[in-house]
Amino acid sequence: MSTWQQYLDTNQPLFLDEMFDFLRIPSISSLPENVGDVRKAGEWVMQRLKRAGIENIEMMETGDQFPGHPVVYGDWLHAPGKPTILIYGHFDVQPVDPVDLWHSPPFEPVLKEGKVYARGSNDDKGNMLVPILAVEALLKSEGQLPVNIKFFLEGQEEIGSPTLPPFVKANQAKFACDMVISADGGQWSETEPELAVGLRGLCAMQINVTGPNRDVHSGMAGGAIQNPIHALVRLLDSMRAPDGKILVEGFYDDVRALTPEERAQIATIPYNENDYKAQLGLSDLFGEPGYSTRERTWARPTLELNGIWGGFQGAGTKTVIPSQAHAKITCRLVADQEPNKIIEKLQAHIAQHTPPGVQITLDIGASASTPYLMPADHPGNQAARDVHLELYGMEPYYARSGGSIPFCALFHTVLGVYTVNFGFALPDERQHSPNEFFRLSSFEKGQKAYCMLLHRLAQTKAS
Amino acid sequence: MSTWQQYLDTNQPLFLDEMFDFLRIPSISSLPENVGDVRKAGEWVMQRLKRAGIENIEMMETGDQFPGHPVVYGDWLHAPGKPTILIYGHFDVQPVDPVDLWHSPPFEPVLKEGKVYARGSNDDKGNMLVPILAVEALLKSEGQLPVNIKFFLEGQEEIGSPTLPPFVKANQAKFACDMVISADGGQWSETEPELAVGLRGLCAMQINVTGPNRDVHSGMAGGAIQNPIHALVRLLDSMRAPDGKILVEGFYDDVRALTPEERAQIATIPYNENDYKAQLGLSDLFGEPGYSTRERTWARPTLELNGIWGGFQGAGTKTVIPSQAHAKITCRLVADQEPNKIIEKLQAHIAQHTPPGVQITLDIGASASTPYLMPADHPGNQAARDVHLELYGMEPYYARSGGSIPFCALFHTVLGVYTVNFGFALPDERQHSPNEFFRLSSFEKGQKAYCMLLHRLAQTKAS
Repeated sequence: MSTWQQYLDTNQPLFLDEMFDFLRIPSISSLPENVGDVRKAGEWVMQRLKRAGIENIEMMETGDQFPGHPVVYGDWLHAPGKPTILIYGHFDVQPVDPVDLWHSPPFEPVLKEGKVYARGSNDDKGNMLVPILAVEALLKSEGQLPVNIKFFLEGQEEIGSPTLPPFVKANQAKFACDMVISADGGQWSETEPELAVGLRGLCAMQINVTGPNRDVHSGMAGGAIQNPIHALVRLLDSMRAPDGKILVEGFYDDVRALTPEERAQIATIPYNENDYKAQLGLSDLFGEPGYSTRERTWARPTLELNGIWGGFQGAGTKTVIPSQAHAKITCRLVADQEPNKIIEKLQAHIAQHTPPGVQITLDIGASASTPYLMPADHPGNQAARDVHLELYGMEPYYARSGGSIPFCALFHTVLGVYTVNFGFALPDERQHSPNEFFRLSSFEKGQKAYCMLLHRLAQTKAS
Repeated sequence: MSTWQQYLDTNQPLFLDEMFDFLRIPSISSLPENVGDVRKAGEWVMQRLKRAGIENIEMMETGDQFPGHPVVYGDWLHAPGKPTILIYGHFDVQPVDPVDLWHSPPFEPVLKEGKVYARGSNDDKGNMLVPILAVEALLKSEGQLPVNIKFFLEGQEEIGSPTLPPFVKANQAKFACDMVISADGGQWSETEPELAVGLRGLCAMQINVTGPNRDVHSGMAGGAIQNPIHALVRLLDSMRAPDGKILVEGFYDDVRALTPEERAQIATIPYNENDYKAQLGLSDLFGEPGYSTRERTWARPTLELNGIWGGFQGAGTKTVIPSQAHAKITCRLVADQEPNKIIEKLQAHIAQHTPPGVQITLDIGASASTPYLMPADHPGNQAARDVHLELYGMEPYYARSGGSIPFCALFHTVLGVYTVNFGFALPDERQHSPNEFFRLSSFEKGQKAYCMLLHRLAQTKAS
């Protein structure tokens, strides 16, 4: 019998081939037309878990209708007296538009200079394969696992996991565990490890502005009626000051202020604003006054316009006042903001600032996520920190993330356990953007790190 | 030999069939992909002029490349000592989106309850067929025309006739005439005639805002960088006060103020704001304070947002900060504003109000049109007024229009002649909107009115 390291070394070509298969499934969770593809990705995961030696694999329904994408569950529970670890990941992906900016089709993965390019390679298909392969390597080389393992792999993370809360509550006993390890996350860089202890929350809405009951001639009606695009622009502009501060009344009320200690800790983590600007092709960064860029993205909430549309978008000129205009908004939230309360504040602001001459309706987004903060010295974090130290030769940075993983807050609330973020994405890999990629080196390092982590977790206390 | 009235009565079914043929050609002048269709519509017009008995028909090129759509010319010049009348119309049409709001396909005309539904039925294909059929009726019934006629039928009116100015200048002698009669216009209602003496001008631009060099994750970048949609919204909102007044510096500088007499004259023309609101499904009208709705649409300039787009427009949520955002603007201008000067003022405003953290580029629209005002007692208007009095039993309203016909100002500048607006569209016929239609009753009345008008014009002075 070989060691898990030998098993991993031997099987990398096969694992890569499998990752390509997985990436070919266009499992976009936000689009109703891809609902079958999300399920197909789930079925692919079930097969892969089975080959890895996981037991009791099943596809669990989370709702009768879109977007109630299924959860794939599987376990291996033959380590009595050892802790039970629930491993989290997701097999759904973001949409791919603007598709003309991709250098190769988003669902036809390619390997170039050690990087796998495809939608989902980084977030989270490549990343979530890592612990499955590590578990397989341990089972094939050692005949058993050092801890009890439950896999919880979902298909709606990219839309904020809207149907998971009642589903997790209803299956509380099945998912009971000592901690969660999430394979949806990343490291600081190729050479610097990170432990994410905070995530922002999320809430979403679409604003629909209606003026005249049809598109009308801008010559005939121009000057007589409110233009829905103008009205939308006015309303949206009322929500944010030119300097970036959000003007929605009460928006900052529940924000937990940064302590001087937290500000100092954040300041020690390396950050090169010039590199970041160069990466994005920007001459200036921008945001709420009084905070550093890192503080703004980690510990301050935002209100972002994710999309806007109305009227004529073709080439040339169309002299029209459109009937409708629309905008999509998401807010990133920080402790102790609550998504529902922020939605209410937005509703109140919109009601108060609706320009004359138009009607406004709101579609409240199914995506909602509570902000998350965990103790830096949690036993799972300590085990992960030991692996980091061994693999990278340095302590991890205790960082936060500007993004949102609804799952972390949900499992903390429902199951009373924290989630250790142990993923291997890197920040330059264009998650959510065209030409997303995942480094093969991260894919391999992750597998090794998970084998080491599961052994270390065997030393932590079981409940 | 029958009378022209008998000829018209006999041939209506054929004329309707021909109009349907004409309407089937999707001659959208703003879209590069329809450039061949605009030419096809021009060829159709040439054939139709030929059958009517018009001579010297030719397709005249106005430019080497898009949007230099051709002009169709033809004449009948056998009335020595009589005035020469140039008849204007256009065979291009507006785009059709949003196409899903059409009850029948826009280029498959249908006749329902005496109304012909199709893109261009009203503006201007149905309307511009009218004088051709009237001329045919006169030639077939009387063997000659009472005046000399030149037809000038163009294919780029809907985009502001960008390549016509140098073309008309270069062909000044060919188009020389005593007056222009435009078949691109309308009457007040089915029972009330109108003479339009003023038209608004037009200028157009597209604003392109660029932030990061790709779409980025709103969690990772949110708070760190300027959002191009936010920046666009800020910029656009800076151009107009919440009450509708345009804030672009100097925008109103060259506006010819309404005299008390003009305000009184406008006030005598019937206007039911409640009907207008009901027609558009609006509870309130809206616009610049200090002016009546009619004054705002006829004698005050506007800045309208015709289109806006950026980021995610699909179903659900995509947590993205887009790389770009765009808006299309047109301004309606009034005497004595000049399109080029207004574009310069917009450019200066945008340069001064560009939000931090983004780059802005402008595409100045080819569409530009100088505002137009003509004397109410012009000999052509007097002849038209006599026809109106006979056909409708009442004096026409001397009205203005909020729309723009670049041709009127162009011919006044280059050839020194005014344009009499003598068209038969009606204001409820949804020009530029889904389900545009043209009344058969207007189609027939127009033919008769043109026969009467050409006879009356024979009494006016030839140069």
